[in-house]
Amino acid sequence: MTLDPFMEAAIQEAKLGLTAGGIPIGSAVVKDGIIVGRGHNLRVQRSSAILHAEMSALESLGRQPAMFYQQVTLYTTLSPCSMCTGAILLYKIPHVVIGENRTFMGEEALLKAHGVKVTVLDHPTCYQMMQAFIQTTPQLWHEDIGVEQP
Amino acid sequence: MTLDPFMEAAIQEAKLGLTAGGIPIGSAVVKDGIIVGRGHNLRVQRSSAILHAEMSALESLGRQPAMFYQQVTLYTTLSPCSMCTGAILLYKIPHVVIGENRTFMGEEALLKAHGVKVTVLDHPTCYQMMQAFIQTTPQLWHEDIGVEQP
Repeated sequence: MTLDPFMEAAIQEAKLGLTAGGIPIGSAVVKDGIIVGRGHNLRVQRSSAILHAEMSALESLGRQPAMFYQQVTLYTTLSPCSMCTGAILLYKIPHVVIGENRTFMGEEALLKAHGVKVTVLDHPTCYQMMQAFIQTTPQLWHEDIGVEQP
Repeated sequence: MTLDPFMEAAIQEAKLGLTAGGIPIGSAVVKDGIIVGRGHNLRVQRSSAILHAEMSALESLGRQPAMFYQQVTLYTTLSPCSMCTGAILLYKIPHVVIGENRTFMGEEALLKAHGVKVTVLDHPTCYQMMQAFIQTTPQLWHEDIGVEQP
């Protein structure tokens, strides 16, 4: 597949997280063809229940006026959960590019119902990262999506 | 009205935020009749786009197993926006107690559609705090909900 430089940045974030002992999910925020924000899941690193990758990337932007968010595209290596989806809807981000949704199908239908453009790349690296992670550390993954480990 | 000690704690949080120059919205998390987490909106104080009151209160809990959230009640002085609603749904919090929803009607319908119990107190202090704040600082309020100031 053709490399998408913004998804590659999100993947780089995911790998940074993995290297630090975290959950390998990354995100980037792009405005006018430039990466303006980025981040990765910080559950382990910050003992955080809210710093999913998308939230970290949004937080890296600091405070922005409403119009700012309406001009960005959010890249994330994994389909966004209901919390991250809610943040996307709050700030009316018009376009979300998703690495993969086979490991976890987030609230893509809710995004679309609100008029958000959703692009799923089905990127093999995104999928393989999560599969390898879940195989070795299933309890972390389940904690991250608020599910009791089966 | 009879004072609800948990909503009073959320109001106390909102007032702490206001004193610090922030947006007066507060939240508390209650488990087995005890306040286990609390927080307030930190947009101004931390230049944060994600630390709404409910998110701050959830973050104050650190990492918890899935079952933990399913046994708590979340108190918030203001009806939860789509981001905070998404967090409530992610962690399957079964009951949300809302100070008021006249200033801002959040995603209460979505919460109810997912089986979350929603209690609205229509608490005069919560309403008056927000009304006074918006009258003096409308731009901050609009920024917080991702809306262009009219």
